[in-house]
Amino acid sequence: MPSLDSVLETVADRVTPAPEERERLADAAATLTDRAEAALADHEVDGDVLQVGSTARGTWLAGDRDIDLFVRFPTDYDRAELERLGLAIGHEVLPEGHEEYAEHPYVTGEFEGFAVDLVPCYDVASATDIRSAVDRTPFHTQYVEANLTDDLAGDVRVCKGFLKGIGVYGSDLRTEGFSGYLAELLVLEYGGFEPLLRAAADWHPPVTLDPENHGKTTFDDPLTVIDPTDPERNVAAVLSTANLARLQHYARDLLADPRLDLFFPNDQPTLDGDAIRTHLDRRATTPAAIVFETPDIVEDQLYPQLRKSLAGIEAGLEAHDFTVFRSATFADAERSVLLFELATTTQPAVERHEGPPVAVREHAEGFFETYADDDAVYGPFIEDDRYVAERPREVTDARAYLDSDAIFEVALGAQIETALDDGYDLLWDEDVATLADRFGAELAAYFEPAP
Amino acid sequence: MPSLDSVLETVADRVTPAPEERERLADAAATLTDRAEAALADHEVDGDVLQVGSTARGTWLAGDRDIDLFVRFPTDYDRAELERLGLAIGHEVLPEGHEEYAEHPYVTGEFEGFAVDLVPCYDVASATDIRSAVDRTPFHTQYVEANLTDDLAGDVRVCKGFLKGIGVYGSDLRTEGFSGYLAELLVLEYGGFEPLLRAAADWHPPVTLDPENHGKTTFDDPLTVIDPTDPERNVAAVLSTANLARLQHYARDLLADPRLDLFFPNDQPTLDGDAIRTHLDRRATTPAAIVFETPDIVEDQLYPQLRKSLAGIEAGLEAHDFTVFRSATFADAERSVLLFELATTTQPAVERHEGPPVAVREHAEGFFETYADDDAVYGPFIEDDRYVAERPREVTDARAYLDSDAIFEVALGAQIETALDDGYDLLWDEDVATLADRFGAELAAYFEPAP
Repeated sequence: MPSLDSVLETVADRVTPAPEERERLADAAATLTDRAEAALADHEVDGDVLQVGSTARGTWLAGDRDIDLFVRFPTDYDRAELERLGLAIGHEVLPEGHEEYAEHPYVTGEFEGFAVDLVPCYDVASATDIRSAVDRTPFHTQYVEANLTDDLAGDVRVCKGFLKGIGVYGSDLRTEGFSGYLAELLVLEYGGFEPLLRAAADWHPPVTLDPENHGKTTFDDPLTVIDPTDPERNVAAVLSTANLARLQHYARDLLADPRLDLFFPNDQPTLDGDAIRTHLDRRATTPAAIVFETPDIVEDQLYPQLRKSLAGIEAGLEAHDFTVFRSATFADAERSVLLFELATTTQPAVERHEGPPVAVREHAEGFFETYADDDAVYGPFIEDDRYVAERPREVTDARAYLDSDAIFEVALGAQIETALDDGYDLLWDEDVATLADRFGAELAAYFEPAP
Repeated sequence: MPSLDSVLETVADRVTPAPEERERLADAAATLTDRAEAALADHEVDGDVLQVGSTARGTWLAGDRDIDLFVRFPTDYDRAELERLGLAIGHEVLPEGHEEYAEHPYVTGEFEGFAVDLVPCYDVASATDIRSAVDRTPFHTQYVEANLTDDLAGDVRVCKGFLKGIGVYGSDLRTEGFSGYLAELLVLEYGGFEPLLRAAADWHPPVTLDPENHGKTTFDDPLTVIDPTDPERNVAAVLSTANLARLQHYARDLLADPRLDLFFPNDQPTLDGDAIRTHLDRRATTPAAIVFETPDIVEDQLYPQLRKSLAGIEAGLEAHDFTVFRSATFADAERSVLLFELATTTQPAVERHEGPPVAVREHAEGFFETYADDDAVYGPFIEDDRYVAERPREVTDARAYLDSDAIFEVALGAQIETALDDGYDLLWDEDVATLADRFGAELAAYFEPAP
């Protein structure tokens, strides 16, 4: 078994950008900064230009090619001016660039092989005075630059490589994982990647870290890392409970059995239709997949809406007493899937309806009178202290339920609801295996699950 | 609609024994008492003879033909002597009688058309000094005789007729209803049957009554009536929650719609096989009946054991995730039935097994290691903060489960377990309808349930 040290050394070698890579990036960033400063001067804006993000902090992974330049405007520009001038400057710096939109619009484009974002923001006095989320980024860069030694920057790269390898890197709402800034703060807090690993292996969430010891708020999150630049903010707010548990699991795994493939996993496995059918036979469950056109929204909207819709329909199934054994949702640019693996698909034609205790006279009499003369109802009879009636069950077949408008009665994501309303396919039982062509990797993750 | 008064008057007429019936009973009781006193003298026992029970208290229903005579022995006789002499005297009084056994043996037989019990007991100073339960009975008789007017005795008869009519009369463990003594105390407490009805209609169990205001103990029963002759005893201890609720239901029913058939119900309905099959089709459930030879034990043992066995096997089914929609047990002298009406009869080949939270390191590592290398297991994977494994399910078919020795792993009544061990038939689905020949009335009560 290789030692942890030797594994981490190999990882560090692989993830550290080569000197020539650093130089090329520094040159490109300098050229772009010059252009942006010139453009600011042309527009007579008393602003400045800052390189931010991991390439500014020296914590980027070899092969990453992102340059993030923030153009800071004085706060006396109103928002419309900032947006107009920000885009104008962006286009001057990146003549081939195009506009994208996050909290406000910015220009993105390629330059000498690098992916460049040119983002306008306000030059506020502190991170607590920000007008939009992007205004905070320069403070993060300043904080990390001021505190991170070159050695620790190396550990941050190893840490990011690990988070990437185990699938929890990224604070987007699809991943719900660790942001780069969060990785930097954790490595800073514990003084390196290995001490972070050892600490994480023993965490008892909820865990709260406050590097600057200035937090005032408590957060209802499994991991709280108070932003050193903003006492009101949890840097780990997006991190899911499961992804925190995953970090703990793999931290222990790496300590117990140091190996490279936790950082550089093999190609993602996929399943074909036959393999899926084999699993279904072995499990003797009944899968049902609602398949529909993926709405044209960003992933940060799509995945939360998919999860909400999955939970809503699952709750609908269970409200009708169908047992959902497991469920999952996945999507690509064209098709989205809500998958329910059912343990029971049919129910009797009657359902128990427990009435009030007989002793609660008014309610009890009301209940009894409601059902006593209804020929479709068995009872009311008495069980223990209550009336019970057995009445016709509204929904007796899970397949018919999923194929009906009843699914629109549960809480669905807004754009998912619209997409479903435009029509969906219901794949039932073995037909779910036909999803293998498009979603073989997602189905492999489902039927051959890892931590 | 007839008035409550006129209904109660008609009932009173029907349940009050005619003068000649009373006279015949009094004559018979006197003759038997004389015989018993003579036998006591022959055996040189300084005891006495007491007529007890409803025929002693004047609260028996027309047509009842029970005479209960208690032969009281001084307490210096030891138990063996009391039993020996008690039986000897019993046989002298009832030469054709035979022995039965409750808490101790006694002689029972017929005399001039009456069913006579001749029970030896101790002449203790008070009901709190009793050596066995029968010693208490004379105190009950004395208390009721001392407190019940002729008018109230009439109300007791009406009350008993009502309890009988609605199926809750009897403190045996099959019925779990109201004893005659309890009916007497309730009528005494409320000063008549109608005030009792009005009170019961509004009861909020748990209800506690203490006619002599001397209770010291609290009982965990839905109705507590402290025995006027023994502050430590709840006269209603045997009454089930459901039967108390039934009294409340039918009290309201009688007040709202006074009618004779609550006292004198029509013949019990029965269902034939076709009617049962029609119900099964309509309900779309799957009934399963375990049918076996009724063990040769008294009803006070049989029914509690049947209920315990029913609950045990039902818990076993539900532990394996089969949903029992409703269940029932019934028996005659030859055959006993445990009936389970199932909503689900099969389960997937896998079952979810939730592990500990990943954060609980030692347990979590143990769980993970247990399942990680088991090819039969899916996972462990992480859901929220926990490991989850999907492992092969032991039992996937309810029919096979009920047909297997697994049912002996649940809590069964002792004699039921023995009887099942000797063999049982499992009737499945429509075959349950074949029980109609023997248990048509019980199945009618099940499939056409009344409060």
